[in-house]
Amino acid sequence: MPEPLRIVVLHGPNLNLLVFREPSLYGRVTLEEINAGLTRQAKESGAQVECFQSNHEGELIDRIQESSRIADGIVINPGGLTHTSVALRDALAAGALPVVEVHLSNIYAREEFRKHSLVSPIVLGVVTGFGALSYTVGLAALLDHLRATR
Amino acid sequence: MPEPLRIVVLHGPNLNLLVFREPSLYGRVTLEEINAGLTRQAKESGAQVECFQSNHEGELIDRIQESSRIADGIVINPGGLTHTSVALRDALAAGALPVVEVHLSNIYAREEFRKHSLVSPIVLGVVTGFGALSYTVGLAALLDHLRATR
Amino acid sequence: MPEPLRIVVLHGPNLNLLVFREPSLYGRVTLEEINAGLTRQAKESGAQVECFQSNHEGELIDRIQESSRIADGIVINPGGLTHTSVALRDALAAGALPVVEVHLSNIYAREEFRKHSLVSPIVLGVVTGFGALSYTVGLAALLDHLRATR
Amino acid sequence: MPEPLRIVVLHGPNLNLLVFREPSLYGRVTLEEINAGLTRQAKESGAQVECFQSNHEGELIDRIQESSRIADGIVINPGGLTHTSVALRDALAAGALPVVEVHLSNIYAREEFRKHSLVSPIVLGVVTGFGALSYTVGLAALLDHLRATR
Amino acid sequence: MPEPLRIVVLHGPNLNLLVFREPSLYGRVTLEEINAGLTRQAKESGAQVECFQSNHEGELIDRIQESSRIADGIVINPGGLTHTSVALRDALAAGALPVVEVHLSNIYAREEFRKHSLVSPIVLGVVTGFGALSYTVGLAALLDHLRATR
Amino acid sequence: MPEPLRIVVLHGPNLNLLVFREPSLYGRVTLEEINAGLTRQAKESGAQVECFQSNHEGELIDRIQESSRIADGIVINPGGLTHTSVALRDALAAGALPVVEVHLSNIYAREEFRKHSLVSPIVLGVVTGFGALSYTVGLAALLDHLRATR
Amino acid sequence: MPEPLRIVVLHGPNLNLLVFREPSLYGRVTLEEINAGLTRQAKESGAQVECFQSNHEGELIDRIQESSRIADGIVINPGGLTHTSVALRDALAAGALPVVEVHLSNIYAREEFRKHSLVSPIVLGVVTGFGALSYTVGLAALLDHLRATR
Amino acid sequence: MPEPLRIVVLHGPNLNLLVFREPSLYGRVTLEEINAGLTRQAKESGAQVECFQSNHEGELIDRIQESSRIADGIVINPGGLTHTSVALRDALAAGALPVVEVHLSNIYAREEFRKHSLVSPIVLGVVTGFGALSYTVGLAALLDHLRATR
Amino acid sequence: MPEPLRIVVLHGPNLNLLVFREPSLYGRVTLEEINAGLTRQAKESGAQVECFQSNHEGELIDRIQESSRIADGIVINPGGLTHTSVALRDALAAGALPVVEVHLSNIYAREEFRKHSLVSPIVLGVVTGFGALSYTVGLAALLDHLRATR
Amino acid sequence: MPEPLRIVVLHGPNLNLLVFREPSLYGRVTLEEINAGLTRQAKESGAQVECFQSNHEGELIDRIQESSRIADGIVINPGGLTHTSVALRDALAAGALPVVEVHLSNIYAREEFRKHSLVSPIVLGVVTGFGALSYTVGLAALLDHLRATR
Amino acid sequence: MPEPLRIVVLHGPNLNLLVFREPSLYGRVTLEEINAGLTRQAKESGAQVECFQSNHEGELIDRIQESSRIADGIVINPGGLTHTSVALRDALAAGALPVVEVHLSNIYAREEFRKHSLVSPIVLGVVTGFGALSYTVGLAALLDHLRATR
Amino acid sequence: MPEPLRIVVLHGPNLNLLVFREPSLYGRVTLEEINAGLTRQAKESGAQVECFQSNHEGELIDRIQESSRIADGIVINPGGLTHTSVALRDALAAGALPVVEVHLSNIYAREEFRKHSLVSPIVLGVVTGFGALSYTVGLAALLDHLRATR
Repeated sequence: MPEPLRIVVLHGPNLNLLVFREPSLYGRVTLEEINAGLTRQAKESGAQVECFQSNHEGELIDRIQESSRIADGIVINPGGLTHTSVALRDALAAGALPVVEVHLSNIYAREEFRKHSLVSPIVLGVVTGFGALSYTVGLAALLDHLRATR
Repeated sequence: MPEPLRIVVLHGPNLNLLVFREPSLYGRVTLEEINAGLTRQAKESGAQVECFQSNHEGELIDRIQESSRIADGIVINPGGLTHTSVALRDALAAGALPVVEVHLSNIYAREEFRKHSLVSPIVLGVVTGFGALSYTVGLAALLDHLRATR
Repeated sequence: MPEPLRIVVLHGPNLNLLVFREPSLYGRVTLEEINAGLTRQAKESGAQVECFQSNHEGELIDRIQESSRIADGIVINPGGLTHTSVALRDALAAGALPVVEVHLSNIYAREEFRKHSLVSPIVLGVVTGFGALSYTVGLAALLDHLRATR
Repeated sequence: MPEPLRIVVLHGPNLNLLVFREPSLYGRVTLEEINAGLTRQAKESGAQVECFQSNHEGELIDRIQESSRIADGIVINPGGLTHTSVALRDALAAGALPVVEVHLSNIYAREEFRKHSLVSPIVLGVVTGFGALSYTVGLAALLDHLRATR
Repeated sequence: MPEPLRIVVLHGPNLNLLVFREPSLYGRVTLEEINAGLTRQAKESGAQVECFQSNHEGELIDRIQESSRIADGIVINPGGLTHTSVALRDALAAGALPVVEVHLSNIYAREEFRKHSLVSPIVLGVVTGFGALSYTVGLAALLDHLRATR
Repeated sequence: MPEPLRIVVLHGPNLNLLVFREPSLYGRVTLEEINAGLTRQAKESGAQVECFQSNHEGELIDRIQESSRIADGIVINPGGLTHTSVALRDALAAGALPVVEVHLSNIYAREEFRKHSLVSPIVLGVVTGFGALSYTVGLAALLDHLRATR
Repeated sequence: MPEPLRIVVLHGPNLNLLVFREPSLYGRVTLEEINAGLTRQAKESGAQVECFQSNHEGELIDRIQESSRIADGIVINPGGLTHTSVALRDALAAGALPVVEVHLSNIYAREEFRKHSLVSPIVLGVVTGFGALSYTVGLAALLDHLRATR
Repeated sequence: MPEPLRIVVLHGPNLNLLVFREPSLYGRVTLEEINAGLTRQAKESGAQVECFQSNHEGELIDRIQESSRIADGIVINPGGLTHTSVALRDALAAGALPVVEVHLSNIYAREEFRKHSLVSPIVLGVVTGFGALSYTVGLAALLDHLRATR
Repeated sequence: MPEPLRIVVLHGPNLNLLVFREPSLYGRVTLEEINAGLTRQAKESGAQVECFQSNHEGELIDRIQESSRIADGIVINPGGLTHTSVALRDALAAGALPVVEVHLSNIYAREEFRKHSLVSPIVLGVVTGFGALSYTVGLAALLDHLRATR
Repeated sequence: MPEPLRIVVLHGPNLNLLVFREPSLYGRVTLEEINAGLTRQAKESGAQVECFQSNHEGELIDRIQESSRIADGIVINPGGLTHTSVALRDALAAGALPVVEVHLSNIYAREEFRKHSLVSPIVLGVVTGFGALSYTVGLAALLDHLRATR
Repeated sequence: MPEPLRIVVLHGPNLNLLVFREPSLYGRVTLEEINAGLTRQAKESGAQVECFQSNHEGELIDRIQESSRIADGIVINPGGLTHTSVALRDALAAGALPVVEVHLSNIYAREEFRKHSLVSPIVLGVVTGFGALSYTVGLAALLDHLRATR
Repeated sequence: MPEPLRIVVLHGPNLNLLVFREPSLYGRVTLEEINAGLTRQAKESGAQVECFQSNHEGELIDRIQESSRIADGIVINPGGLTHTSVALRDALAAGALPVVEVHLSNIYAREEFRKHSLVSPIVLGVVTGFGALSYTVGLAALLDHLRATR
């Protein structure tokens, strides 16, 4: 039996506040509920996820570097860093792991400066606009991809 | 028992050539195989899909207008029209249906003019970069959304 | 008695859906009602109009080419093609007919990409923002112009 | 019998020189003739117009403020201020009156800097390119609009 | 006892209409009330203010030139001229007086063209977004500055 | 004896009107005469040409897809689609055929929006500005290229 | 007696160095002196302030999130993050508190890249250019606002 | 003996303050001295000048319109209106007179927004950077031009 | 018998190195071979060519000026000067000769700064992308044009 | 008696062709006539001029460097290099001499790329649009300036 | 004997991963080896270096502030923060130390967004493109500079 | 014993004037002294340098072409041509030699147009801002590189 796939799920700044934040855009759900759902989904699929949130760019980069050594893929919602952090992009590109970028809201339907992602050009794929479902769908796609290319 | 959800899947210009086209980017799969897979996936989920491809902007708009009357949602890969057709956007916006935009390749990792989608600001969500899997994932997300908001 | 002036009225993509579409912007009226009104208005003024709608850029160009041979002027609402079709502009410029461009809504008060019309620089005049009245006013101005320059 | 509608017609800088100015573009007509025509047109339609021209931005703003208290609508050709005066735009927006913007020439077919109007986004509608007829048509549209929404 | 500080308060175009204008943005207050409040505030602080409003750029420039000879500082809300008048900027820069720029609304949260002020680079400081309080706060800051640098 | 080279010549929107259109720019010649000349030129060179004009983007794409299966090269004058159609570019890029882009007029000496061709970056070569001779020269260059690389 | 208003004052990167930094621009004052002054000002006004400085974006975001639960308003000088941090903006926007943005120097009179603030569009008001007085004035305005809207 | 040439010299906003204004840029001279010098220069050359300064755009336009009827040429230093007034440009273009644009300082060596003149494209020539001498030189060139083309 | 047509062929900087330079782009051919081929082609067609290469912009301009007196047309590959030399453009425009611009590689498929030619707007036609064949084809087109317009 | 002022007059590329070149723009005059006139003008004013024309940027720079050692000022018409040569600008800036930039035509009324001069920001003054008179006027202004600042 | 010069060497985000990262660009070397080499180089030159790496912008700023008190100069490779961190730039500018910016790869030959450094305008010098040698060379230049200006 | 490495050092326009030029920026040193220093440095390192300066772009290109045949590497300070010469870039790229670009001043801290180098994307490395030391450091780095890759 092959070893289970290990996925790291990363949440960027302010995503810990999910339930308070602009509810009309994202619907009501807490980050804990999202993480619990992803853990269940991974388990049913014979995989493992580890979830991590931080408001600190540096901590996210530390975690990405660490993930490159211990995981098979990354699901990341970089939050506001999506549009501004070259360092985060470099960390993701430096690792050899496939990355799926997810966003709760449809970032292309919001302010102009949210329409450009520094991360998108170096990821495997992007899922945006489905609320918490973006994570579910992104994780499923990543697992499928990893199994197809194992 | 509720009526099954009806989804229209639209493929824009050149997607009929899938198997010939820049194979390193999209992997080898024919449009027929994608359509067959989506039909199966819908059926298993108690829904119906109807698939349509055209190289003609006008035919796609005609079909979108028609779908607004008979379907519950649209999955669309507008191909090259993604970046140039205000008329297609208007057709999608005029209908009251939720729309999921999908792309086989990661359009944010290609030429500059492919990074801007006229369609994205008016859709429910976007899935991009997973090859044929983008359709699967997009359809699943659309069905989930429709059931949640029924 | 002079031959009656012949005017071709062209409606671009999605204008067939008028009554369904974003009603707060345009008021409630069907394309059939607009066409009927223009026919009556022309008749009272001793002129003739022929109305045509299409979602296909190519069909509109075909019709413009034909009009150049049989009509005295064109009233056109190019819809979403206003902002994207050089070919439509070329067709209008190639004919020797005076053209009046009309829009139901005030396109300068909407999204940024709607503020630029490829057609405006080669037409006689533009009428925008008066709902169905834009057509009435545009047709009247065109007939006046044709009579003044006959 | 309802009170007659009162319309203020405002002409911006240099429009007092109409007959001298670049005649190939606008045809030969004096501002007095235009004003006389509009007065007649209004009278026939049971309305009243008051016409005013100034080369001074401040005087035009004063008059717009005054009109907001005593009139039902404004027809304005802001001349060169169209493209540069935020203060004029603010004055028009601050009043609660419907405004129709008119231009003698087709401003979209002239120099680049004339293609952008600061006023257009806050008016009811725009009529451009028909020479003196632009005023006639604009006044008619405004009266129709006022009667429809009375 | 030192001579009281003399401050000129200048209000640009349309600010005389304050109470009518887009009330949701600025709250309900008349220019007279603002002026009365500033007069009181200055008096309590042992200073004098003179208030002036005009819709005419030229009159504002005349008054700025005059103020340079008779006053110690200027509080100005240039209204719509903020974004368009190099001549106003030149007048303010030519005087040797410290200038405080104030705005009722937060201009950075409004239309794109309101985010750039030609005046800001040559003033002492800017206060924006606090409604009538912007004037109070701006006057206080100017008086403090003048006393500190006397 | 080798099989004769088969070339498809494609004319975009409005080129069927050649003889009427802005004669000072292109000289007087009909599309039929151009096609006849190219047929003769090909024959003399032991090759075959098939000519096709359409005002419909979709029909041109259909024909390009078909040509990819049956021809050795394409000469195309995309007309107004040159500057706006990503879908046409994709169709040309998807086929494995060498493409020569031709224009009757010197597009770099015309309006700003005509100076950028979406097609040029993916073709073998471009010939522009020689009127009908652009086709002759483009066909000759394509045949030479095909023989050199056979 | 109502509970005293609680205000959090946040200082971004490098503001701890105030006394050393480009003294001609800001005058000589230490951050400790500014904080002491604000504490005194609040006390006299029956309010409380808590001051916090960090060079770490993440710590500032953590503190903003915390403030949203325990304070009534925020005064923030985001320093160099003003122009680059979408995450900071998101944190401020996510909280339900009114925010006043302050800057010591007149940022509109400095380098081009300092003229654009990501934070300004989502704050209540901005005070810039008065040195340490910017904080005083900003705090006073915030307290006034909170009392008026209590 | 021919009638003497009549030249109108126009000074825009803030030029009445010449002697106070940023002396390092322009040297010390009053507008009266400049006008006196030009009067003398014209007289020696058998011509007449009339000088006029205003801070009001409208007054300058009024004077330009009047000059078109009574003068042979215009020397204008539009001051800050150089960069912002389409109405002034229109007034100058509407008159049939040759215009010489002058500036005291080298506007191309100052702020970015001073490098673009709306007036330059429609004048005969421009003289910039020589202080008061710019007027002398501009007047001489205009007189020479008028004599050569009489 | 008419005098033979005289054509000057000009090669800009670095074209003397042809055989060494980025061979994958241009194929292997020396400038001498290209010149010899053009000489032969001209001779067969009853014309004469004179070929000249220089790395010096000034020498190319000198030669263009001279050619204007002694030749009937110019074929030029301006190399890197294509994108930067207004002086070269002026020299070509000042002569009354028809000019054909040629490039070995498809400049529209290379770096962004190579896509804009300062020369194209003032030439008769452009041929690009066919390697050495670009010259052959350009010369042929120029000779045809000269004979047609003789 | 003071030593006579020595001025170097430099003409850039293509100015040797003056008489042939686009005569409608510049009028008919040869460079020799311009040079002769300037020599005479200088002599009458007790100064000396030396004139030099080259199509080579490098020769112009050599001459500017030399002039810095032997002359008192430079009059230069850089021709097409005006808009492209940083090296020419550097040469002029490196010398300690006052420079007057002249142009025959009004460069602000021509193509967009001619409106920006790299040289203007570092010269004393600019004279443009008066044909050969631009040189006369520029030389006179330079001599005046040199005498005033001697 | 003078005290040895103390240099702080700072490495930004992801540089701790050196050996893993895009090896074709930088060659194979670990950060430890680079640091060891710099320590040796400094020692041989009678100086001292202290090396520090962090993925956290805030920690780098803390260290820069500290260095300003204890060191004589800084060598910094800001990694991805080069292009995005105004706060880092402010920290470097606030200290009075000379700074040398180094990059392993030639950042001008990579993605567009890497070509602009926020740090470069405020440093002494920049060394880029020589791999680990960039540090060696940068340190040598800094030591030379410090000795020359001691 | 291996043959000594041969390096060509190229100085662009105006660098022959070094000692006169803007001394505050570059310090006082002549080009001869720089060249002598580089000759000595090379000799000590067992290499040879040949130095060449020209104000003529063409001569620099000639020398680069020649160097490609006889030297092992190039150190170049292109002066003002850095920002404008595609031809120089092409010459450097066409040779197979490693190139080091050096600048005396920190070009990123000067005018906007000096911040972009056409040469940087095709060189090995860049050294900027250290005055004459930039050459020393650049030569050392080039020699190291050549020895490492021999």
